[in-house]
Amino acid sequence: MQVDVISSVNEARTDELLHKTVIVIDVLRATSTVVSALDNGGACIIPVETVSQAKQCQSLGDLLGGERYCKKIAGFHFGNSPLEYTEQHVKDRRIILTTTNGTRAVQKAQRAAIVLAGCLRNAASCAETAVSFGKDIAVLCSGTRDEFSLEDGLCAGLLVERIVQFVGNQSRARVSTNDLGMALRFAYLHQQDDITSTLLESSNGKRLARLGYREDVVYCSEVDVTTMVPILDQGMLVPFSCSAQARTLPR
Amino acid sequence: MQVDVISSVNEARTDELLHKTVIVIDVLRATSTVVSALDNGGACIIPVETVSQAKQCQSLGDLLGGERYCKKIAGFHFGNSPLEYTEQHVKDRRIILTTTNGTRAVQKAQRAAIVLAGCLRNAASCAETAVSFGKDIAVLCSGTRDEFSLEDGLCAGLLVERIVQFVGNQSRARVSTNDLGMALRFAYLHQQDDITSTLLESSNGKRLARLGYREDVVYCSEVDVTTMVPILDQGMLVPFSCSAQARTLPR
Repeated sequence: MQVDVISSVNEARTDELLHKTVIVIDVLRATSTVVSALDNGGACIIPVETVSQAKQCQSLGDLLGGERYCKKIAGFHFGNSPLEYTEQHVKDRRIILTTTNGTRAVQKAQRAAIVLAGCLRNAASCAETAVSFGKDIAVLCSGTRDEFSLEDGLCAGLLVERIVQFVGNQSRARVSTNDLGMALRFAYLHQQDDITSTLLESSNGKRLARLGYREDVVYCSEVDVTTMVPILDQGMLVPFSCSAQARTLPR
Repeated sequence: MQVDVISSVNEARTDELLHKTVIVIDVLRATSTVVSALDNGGACIIPVETVSQAKQCQSLGDLLGGERYCKKIAGFHFGNSPLEYTEQHVKDRRIILTTTNGTRAVQKAQRAAIVLAGCLRNAASCAETAVSFGKDIAVLCSGTRDEFSLEDGLCAGLLVERIVQFVGNQSRARVSTNDLGMALRFAYLHQQDDITSTLLESSNGKRLARLGYREDVVYCSEVDVTTMVPILDQGMLVPFSCSAQARTLPR
């Protein structure tokens, strides 16, 4: 099984993602928010690229979420803070989400065989689910404005580590990773006991803390705390357990 | 002092390199070869992009070195193996070098204030020399055909680590690094006792070993074994100690 890490959206070539399982990562904060919203009972998340697409998608009862420059978009119900998406607000609701980097990465991955949303919080379950499809895996870091982001890189390294562990435990085929995947796995292993403070030292972590979102960074830095794995199903991110794929896969 | 790591030549924007000290890295093998050739008494290395440029540059007595697809170019004196550039062959000779990635990276960096050639073998001295100029530093990994290479990434991480140590010892200003620099420093620290086997597991390391250059990979994986720092001076890489900059700098 080949596992390749891609450092940012611009580095991803659509033709390299075809036939693969793609795990999209935007730790600060889009994929952490998606996981949180579904964990709290949200029916589904519809990722869109622009604010006008979000408004066009909206049906009666739908919630609008998203950010530009880390801040809530005027007229939207939520920003991009996972802590806003509480059960009280999102239970059984469709949420239309547009963010600067994360939703763009999901769009880029759309033609892949399978698209999952990964973050530090769901890494082990996300790795296990990805392996269960038996396909090669691409870990697509959203990055920030086409640059590598430390938090996405460490999450990619963690996912590679969990995939290697999981495949090893199942005595399945060997895992090969590209050079970036190897480097980020080493980086994660070096910092694994110190993820929260490392995220607070990252470029996005510092920016968010300055804007008053320090608590978000701490929340997003928690590792393997939920089994919620969002999967893209007809343009909507839904819990993997509820998806068509889950019903057809031998697990 | 800001220290930014750039993952491959294509990621480098010339305007971001202006006014900086740029350390160009191509561990396997161009910058290791340059260091080796100068260590063995070569007068200078002239990096050029194409085979025809190399031939046009050649004056009587000059040596031609370089590779395409890791192999020696027909009619050239040397390939790109640092082990070929022995004192017997290179002493006091000008060498014109063209390689797939490394010499392209030097060309890209040409408009920077200072350009140094770094590899694992000269990392500590290269870091110390870079810091001595007092400018912000860009560490430019050559990569392989515009993709990140593990060996260049680990060397970049080592350089960041040595720069931090050196600035710390001098009680100078604090070093800030970009997210990629932080990640690669962590990766280096995790693998620092195992650099040779890690390089042999990298994509380029495996390719070179397959082609019969395993000994090159081992040689290029040795850390801090020489104080030779090549600097670009009027289009030629010369030992820093012989350059105009060395004569004008307070050291």
